[in-house]
Amino acid sequence: MSCRLRNFKLTIEYDGTDFNGWQVQGGKTRTVQAVIETALTRIFKKKTPLTGSGRTDSGVHAVGQVAHFQASTALDPRQVQKALNANLPPDIVILQVQNAAPTFHARFRAKKKTYRYTILNREFRCALNRQTCHHIARALNVTAMRRAAKGLEGKKDFRCFMAADPAFPIPVQERPTVRRIHRILIKKRGDWLTIDIQADGFLYKMARNIVGTLLEVGAGRRKPADIEDILRGQDRKKAGVTAPAHGLCLISVEY
Amino acid sequence: MSCRLRNFKLTIEYDGTDFNGWQVQGGKTRTVQAVIETALTRIFKKKTPLTGSGRTDSGVHAVGQVAHFQASTALDPRQVQKALNANLPPDIVILQVQNAAPTFHARFRAKKKTYRYTILNREFRCALNRQTCHHIARALNVTAMRRAAKGLEGKKDFRCFMAADPAFPIPVQERPTVRRIHRILIKKRGDWLTIDIQADGFLYKMARNIVGTLLEVGAGRRKPADIEDILRGQDRKKAGVTAPAHGLCLISVEY
Repeated sequence: MSCRLRNFKLTIEYDGTDFNGWQVQGGKTRTVQAVIETALTRIFKKKTPLTGSGRTDSGVHAVGQVAHFQASTALDPRQVQKALNANLPPDIVILQVQNAAPTFHARFRAKKKTYRYTILNREFRCALNRQTCHHIARALNVTAMRRAAKGLEGKKDFRCFMAADPAFPIPVQERPTVRRIHRILIKKRGDWLTIDIQADGFLYKMARNIVGTLLEVGAGRRKPADIEDILRGQDRKKAGVTAPAHGLCLISVEY
Repeated sequence: MSCRLRNFKLTIEYDGTDFNGWQVQGGKTRTVQAVIETALTRIFKKKTPLTGSGRTDSGVHAVGQVAHFQASTALDPRQVQKALNANLPPDIVILQVQNAAPTFHARFRAKKKTYRYTILNREFRCALNRQTCHHIARALNVTAMRRAAKGLEGKKDFRCFMAADPAFPIPVQERPTVRRIHRILIKKRGDWLTIDIQADGFLYKMARNIVGTLLEVGAGRRKPADIEDILRGQDRKKAGVTAPAHGLCLISVEY
């Protein structure tokens, strides 16, 4: 039976703890992309490359990463999903497989992404959910954080929140660094704080660098009004430190 | 400086994944109790036994386990807490240390305990929180589960939900097996289901055996009305299977 080449869209959940991120960086090879590609290759008996909506760093989680691949197969999306899940380790699961138009591209067609950063804000560290939250002992001023976050919303040059990325082929100075942050939503519930950042795209480590800066505002080391200076300065050194990877989770990608 | 013997009450959170339960059963030795006792012995430079409100099985978590120990020390509860947390591994944290009356006993004085069982009820398994929830693919009938749960509330003989416990010194037939379940609360939120069971005490594996039975009702393999027969039969074989340990968490112990 001959089958035409089809394009499949995957929605993926993973626990980033034991992965070296989405894509190989350096020599380490247990990446989400590589593990799924191995499963695809096993199922389709042919090397099958997978393209994600973007990379997530080592330790970052996802409940809604999106990727696509092409395969000549008679399997329908449900069969592909079942075959994939049966061939994946416990820390990855494919939540959905859909037929996609031949022009669908997980990275280039992405219109909006939402990341969530989770913080446990209490004096003593966390035992039970320690792989999915960042612990901060000092009480955070959430009102100040929300005010600072407001100053980040809109279409701006976020160069100051971009980390140098040795793997990227274009020099930092020449990259397009304007993005639109649609919304930053900070919710507090008991000792738990979540920061949802929705944007049309994220520069390298932008989400973690924004969170790190907001946390410095929350700790009183910066003022909400400093955000304007930081953005104007376009200098990574003026922004806050990078928040740890394990608090971050890619929630959704919209097309 | 001589110090009088003082009684301390601890509130403890732990990720049960890598522990062989609260207390040594069989030859395995990485237990929550043993790890905390090692830290206590290091701090007080004297063998310091710890008494928990009760054992939790291998893999069961806690966010509110309670225990007590006695020590001759000038340290106040805050200092004890800091010293303990500094000497404990990442999967245990002491949430609170309090001075307790000399008569306080974590096990014998416990009046009420609450366990929570967490279920992910969707077709495909869970990657991100797989160590703290039990996955059930088949859609559960929550209304039927709630009706069955109602039949378990009150003061009853729960012998049918007790597992044989080789470590216990009294033969099954002679043990007091009457307990009062104050409330079973089943909440559904999206794909997540939680079952909170509050009782004046729990027999060995009672929480997991009750959940296992409720899940059989939810799956349509038993009727809510069967609960009465199961209780009347006083026969472990008539009740449902034991739900897996990793979905269970000891929420609180009241005195």
